[in-house]
Amino acid sequence: MEKNTKKKYVIGVGISFENTVCAIVDLRGNVIAIDDFTTSDYPDIDDYVSKLSECIVSLAESYVGIEKIRSVGISAPSGNRLTGCITNSPNFPWKGVIPLEAMLRDRLGIAVALGNDAHSNALGEYIYGTAHGMKNFIVVTLGTGLGSCVFTNGFANLGQDGFAGEIGHTCIIADGRSCGCGKRGCLETYTAAKGIVMTAKEIMQETDEPSLMRQAEELTPRIIVDFCNQGDRLAIETFNRTGYLLGMGLANYASVLNPEAVILTGGITKAGKWLYDPTYKAFKEHIFPNMRDLVKLIVSDLDGHERVVLGASCMAWEVKEYSLFK
Amino acid sequence: MEKNTKKKYVIGVGISFENTVCAIVDLRGNVIAIDDFTTSDYPDIDDYVSKLSECIVSLAESYVGIEKIRSVGISAPSGNRLTGCITNSPNFPWKGVIPLEAMLRDRLGIAVALGNDAHSNALGEYIYGTAHGMKNFIVVTLGTGLGSCVFTNGFANLGQDGFAGEIGHTCIIADGRSCGCGKRGCLETYTAAKGIVMTAKEIMQETDEPSLMRQAEELTPRIIVDFCNQGDRLAIETFNRTGYLLGMGLANYASVLNPEAVILTGGITKAGKWLYDPTYKAFKEHIFPNMRDLVKLIVSDLDGHERVVLGASCMAWEVKEYSLFK
Repeated sequence: MEKNTKKKYVIGVGISFENTVCAIVDLRGNVIAIDDFTTSDYPDIDDYVSKLSECIVSLAESYVGIEKIRSVGISAPSGNRLTGCITNSPNFPWKGVIPLEAMLRDRLGIAVALGNDAHSNALGEYIYGTAHGMKNFIVVTLGTGLGSCVFTNGFANLGQDGFAGEIGHTCIIADGRSCGCGKRGCLETYTAAKGIVMTAKEIMQETDEPSLMRQAEELTPRIIVDFCNQGDRLAIETFNRTGYLLGMGLANYASVLNPEAVILTGGITKAGKWLYDPTYKAFKEHIFPNMRDLVKLIVSDLDGHERVVLGASCMAWEVKEYSLFK
Repeated sequence: MEKNTKKKYVIGVGISFENTVCAIVDLRGNVIAIDDFTTSDYPDIDDYVSKLSECIVSLAESYVGIEKIRSVGISAPSGNRLTGCITNSPNFPWKGVIPLEAMLRDRLGIAVALGNDAHSNALGEYIYGTAHGMKNFIVVTLGTGLGSCVFTNGFANLGQDGFAGEIGHTCIIADGRSCGCGKRGCLETYTAAKGIVMTAKEIMQETDEPSLMRQAEELTPRIIVDFCNQGDRLAIETFNRTGYLLGMGLANYASVLNPEAVILTGGITKAGKWLYDPTYKAFKEHIFPNMRDLVKLIVSDLDGHERVVLGASCMAWEVKEYSLFK
């Protein structure tokens, strides 16, 4: 009888532009220990890989021992699961194509899998979250940007080149707002954080109606939600317009893909009913009638920080075990 | 050693609102014989199934013998491969949910597979056509309506309930033209046959500029193409606007799915460069930049009639063999 491996743990790494979180995760999705550092402190990619490697080894040694770590999964914006590279990220200081998977594997001597944050979120939802038991679903992450990952017959659809999921950069209004990607009218420019604030400003310019938003020093989606809770009409209208376009965009993808559910994750979903209600209304209005009563629109109940490292840990379990040190 | 089956043939059936084509097809996609009848002559579904059954048996007996027929594949608008039913078709005289697969199987005593025309077209392209060897692609059929089928990792993505592919009923212009499906602004209302004619009429109303289109007794996409070939500026503008929206809509799906190619089929593709050139331009403009040089936009080179029965024959090969008469 072959021995079951002793390597009962993986490392889940969640990289965002602000910080990098590393966690030891077991098979059942229990987070054993967690550590983090500031991503932007390491503008040189070699320095970053050194720091990441140190953080992982030190975390592992403090709790379970590095020899018990099977593999590492990394969730990063613009990460490509098929190439293991971060490709042309507009927001990281590391430009061009960064082979982070290979760099970290060579440093640590154990298997590494790198994918983008939308794919990682979707895996986390599939294995440990809201999509558990589903085979066909779309996970959409609303935050600084708008990302998505489609699961088809139980597998992530990464596309021919690993770039699938760019729902944020589909055109929802022809010749609409300028987007950082170089195009115009992208769904992200209306429904991610900056776009919501821009909508609020447009609404304030259209009317003289008083609003709490006019006195705010800085507008963020979180502050606009506070104003909604205080009954501010223009703040509520901001999310009504956001939800209308978001619901329409999601209905378009649902009409093509007929998923069991569209699952919303990410910081912006904390807007709760102010965003969900108008999104749901537009979603049901715009989806193809045969699917109207079939496709669910659900908000994830996984905690955000947990989802990131859980999703990354799922990528780690998927990759073939490999070690320089048998 | 188990005997190889003697059943070397299948029947491919292509149903459209106008006519029904039945063909005997072999493994290599050779069409051995073909027959057809007028669909609309049989407004009662029981009469239709009797006629279809007679047509298949008589065709088989005239050429190879019914005992050599392994199975039957049917391509029909609003056909659902998962349920075997035609569901709520707006254009057939048969209303509601029609279990055509089961009805014909019971009549003939051999296995039957029914799917929608977009799925069937895509299968035909995959096995015998332009998509041969590809794993991730989208086939879009432009005709009376606008349908599509997405292939992911070599398999058709039918969705959770078999309704996937409704690209024609995604919203391209918020609150735009009314669609037969009950929604507004559907891509189909701008890029399928009726929509193209409507665009031509809108253009003629916007200006006093002379145009051959003004003298035409009846406008159809084919006639507008003739006028394009004669250099008619408004006819050319009609396809420019059609191609702009079509290219944008296709780019949106490509950005989410990152296919190897988007393949265009159907009668409207006969417009050639008048449609293709503006579609290609808008497609490349609107696709997510990382994929701009990766995703191809191709016009199928399969003949239309051939594609329908070949696609249906592929469905027939997929279904499990079954016979009342061993």
